[in-house]
Amino acid sequence: MARHTARDLRSENRFEVLHALFELGPSTRQELARHTGLSQATVATLVTEFLSGGVLHIAAVERNTGGRPQERLTIAPDRGRIVGVDVAETYVDAVVHDLALGVLGHAEVALDEEENDPAYVVDGIVRAIDGAVGADATERARVIGVGVSMPGHVHPDAGVSVFAPNWDWHDVRIEELLEDLAIPVYVDNPLKAVILSEMWFGVGNAVDSMAVVNLGTGVGAGIALDGSLIRGITNNAGEWGHTLLELDGRACRCGRRGCVEAYVGAPGLRTTLAEIDPGHPLLRQQRQRDFVERVAQGLAAGDPALSVLVLRTARYLAAGLGDLVNLLDVPHITLTGWASEALADRLVPAVRDELPHHVLPGSLAGLVVEPSRVPGNAVALGMAAFTLQQFLTRLGLASPARTRPRPDPEPAGFSRRAGTVPSPGPDAA
Amino acid sequence: MARHTARDLRSENRFEVLHALFELGPSTRQELARHTGLSQATVATLVTEFLSGGVLHIAAVERNTGGRPQERLTIAPDRGRIVGVDVAETYVDAVVHDLALGVLGHAEVALDEEENDPAYVVDGIVRAIDGAVGADATERARVIGVGVSMPGHVHPDAGVSVFAPNWDWHDVRIEELLEDLAIPVYVDNPLKAVILSEMWFGVGNAVDSMAVVNLGTGVGAGIALDGSLIRGITNNAGEWGHTLLELDGRACRCGRRGCVEAYVGAPGLRTTLAEIDPGHPLLRQQRQRDFVERVAQGLAAGDPALSVLVLRTARYLAAGLGDLVNLLDVPHITLTGWASEALADRLVPAVRDELPHHVLPGSLAGLVVEPSRVPGNAVALGMAAFTLQQFLTRLGLASPARTRPRPDPEPAGFSRRAGTVPSPGPDAA
Ligand SMILES: [Zn+2]
Ligand SMILES: [Zn+2]
Repeated sequence: MARHTARDLRSENRFEVLHALFELGPSTRQELARHTGLSQATVATLVTEFLSGGVLHIAAVERNTGGRPQERLTIAPDRGRIVGVDVAETYVDAVVHDLALGVLGHAEVALDEEENDPAYVVDGIVRAIDGAVGADATERARVIGVGVSMPGHVHPDAGVSVFAPNWDWHDVRIEELLEDLAIPVYVDNPLKAVILSEMWFGVGNAVDSMAVVNLGTGVGAGIALDGSLIRGITNNAGEWGHTLLELDGRACRCGRRGCVEAYVGAPGLRTTLAEIDPGHPLLRQQRQRDFVERVAQGLAAGDPALSVLVLRTARYLAAGLGDLVNLLDVPHITLTGWASEALADRLVPAVRDELPHHVLPGSLAGLVVEPSRVPGNAVALGMAAFTLQQFLTRLGLASPARTRPRPDPEPAGFSRRAGTVPSPGPDAA
Repeated sequence: MARHTARDLRSENRFEVLHALFELGPSTRQELARHTGLSQATVATLVTEFLSGGVLHIAAVERNTGGRPQERLTIAPDRGRIVGVDVAETYVDAVVHDLALGVLGHAEVALDEEENDPAYVVDGIVRAIDGAVGADATERARVIGVGVSMPGHVHPDAGVSVFAPNWDWHDVRIEELLEDLAIPVYVDNPLKAVILSEMWFGVGNAVDSMAVVNLGTGVGAGIALDGSLIRGITNNAGEWGHTLLELDGRACRCGRRGCVEAYVGAPGLRTTLAEIDPGHPLLRQQRQRDFVERVAQGLAAGDPALSVLVLRTARYLAAGLGDLVNLLDVPHITLTGWASEALADRLVPAVRDELPHHVLPGSLAGLVVEPSRVPGNAVALGMAAFTLQQFLTRLGLASPARTRPRPDPEPAGFSRRAGTVPSPGPDAA
């Protein structure tokens, strides 16, 4: 099979320039070329394309003695709005961003964990988007795309469909259900969103290979190796939550026994606490987020059973992270997700104490494990970044004076509904 | 951090052309350009370089009606010899290849599993190479490089050193110990060798993402994702053998408990058989390879305890492969290594029966698990291929009329001893 690198590189040049702008701030064409490794000519072509599409604007012109004036370019925040939507088992969080991915506002809608009708979830998504964007028609018209993260297996074959074992969904076509929005919808999986956020707005400025471990009801890992986001052949890579901690161990909702998720997902924490103290009052908390919040509060208050819970959970988590590191030899792991936010203060130091028992010596020396410093909702931010990539691809597709050597791969999961997305035209080399 | 893709691509162009020649056989420049996605100009430059270095020769000239004569190029097998050396816990196998990586001969030296002195192992390596190449000085002079696969952690920082827990080696500088060979030595790890073999001479012609699981005394996985060999930050990726099957399970030689290797490595098979039938006569076999060979013979003869051994081992193996697939979503796994060769007939069908219990549904549908079809010793072949890449890099470094924008990354582990390797000069763009 022919390597795809040359083609991928061509189609990714736009994203490279975009990423450089986020990393460098206002930049000259030369700085963009140097940072991306792209030729000056390629950068100049893309910048012209972006300027004519209104995506970039000239932030400043510098006149150095003896040289030509240099234009500093930056993303034009007001060119449009992008909504990143984080759909979890227990809530929908919709975050409105400007085009430079600055956060303008958000709205959250609670989901009943017991409800699994796709129409119910879709209604929650629409209400969250409505709440975040507001009723003003002018503002709604500025939204150039919505990126929706769905838990479960979001696969791009034959359009987008979602397999979500937690909801017993099979082949639910979420983008068709969202057709009434009349806005381009990009659907992906939270693990892909959190790793893109980390690559662009987190430790990606320091390392090329990393994993982001997402802790919530479900758990999983977004993975980047040598600067590439790892999707897997069916966009299902990163299901670290469904790797083994213990053969024939606790039942997991995926149907297997002994998966990592059954120990370090929020319901797994409850199981562990029940093993430590079957009569513990927090076990009466029905809602997962309430349970985890109360655990954090109880830890602060010195509850000894909860201290044991942290130590056991840290051991499980370190064992699972050890597998990730031993297999992929990544130097950096960040933790994200609502359960991590609630517990990281106590959990991360305890995990670090356990890691030497689980990581091979060669990979342990430089290993960093820390809470993610990506601001805000990393899932929503990552989905907004994918949606922005998609918007730039459409801009490129629409530019007339180019030839197109091969079909451009589109990010997995992009909705190609007629009427909302320009049909493919000639593309950049 | 700037993406490395552009630079990597530039330095890998040579390998792309080489790989295409292996995949296509005798090819025109146009065919090479089409297959690699490289520009015609880049291919023409590299072909000129390879022709002048004697690496390629013109196999045929085709005169089509109306067109220019087309030269078909092929690797010149007699330009030199490359020795690929597979150093395992129990043997050294040295395989002599021509430059087209055809096998000319090999020699094997047994290693005592109990001996761990580096000088003893190095002596075995030298004797195996001597045996394979023979005493003829003319033939020895044709050897352009030796690629040595060492078990354990072969890391390229500060030259090459090897950490091998099985031998209690720390920082053993194997390439210095092999200095007397007076031939460029490339050192790497068998997992990197088997995946390169699989990418170039196995299922890599059909898929871009795959894992090769190496079963012997130790076990591990070579990994390729989206056409790229995964090395990890310290060249230690692929230590699947040291991911968990069972927290607090069997003691593993890495110091952890419950690793996959403790169940499916050759000593793990013996432990499982002892659990099934502590008095089984095969447990008196001291040497691992003898033990595994006898297991294969006993299975053929219908020994019921050994049938149970295969079923339990298949379950362990399927659980470990399930983790690999759930995490990386690879569509194809091949099995290689001497233990796989002995047992695959019985083991692989049993593993396939178990996989549905361990692999997420989305990744299971298209998953193929099969014995590797790479011919001969895949470790030695992969090491020869790395050594050939290294030789081509040196050819490129030696060509004078080029500028060099950045230092070219060399494959991890290449020995840079003065006197045997040309010092870096100007390089191709
Ligand atoms: Zn599971
Ligand atoms: Zn181990």
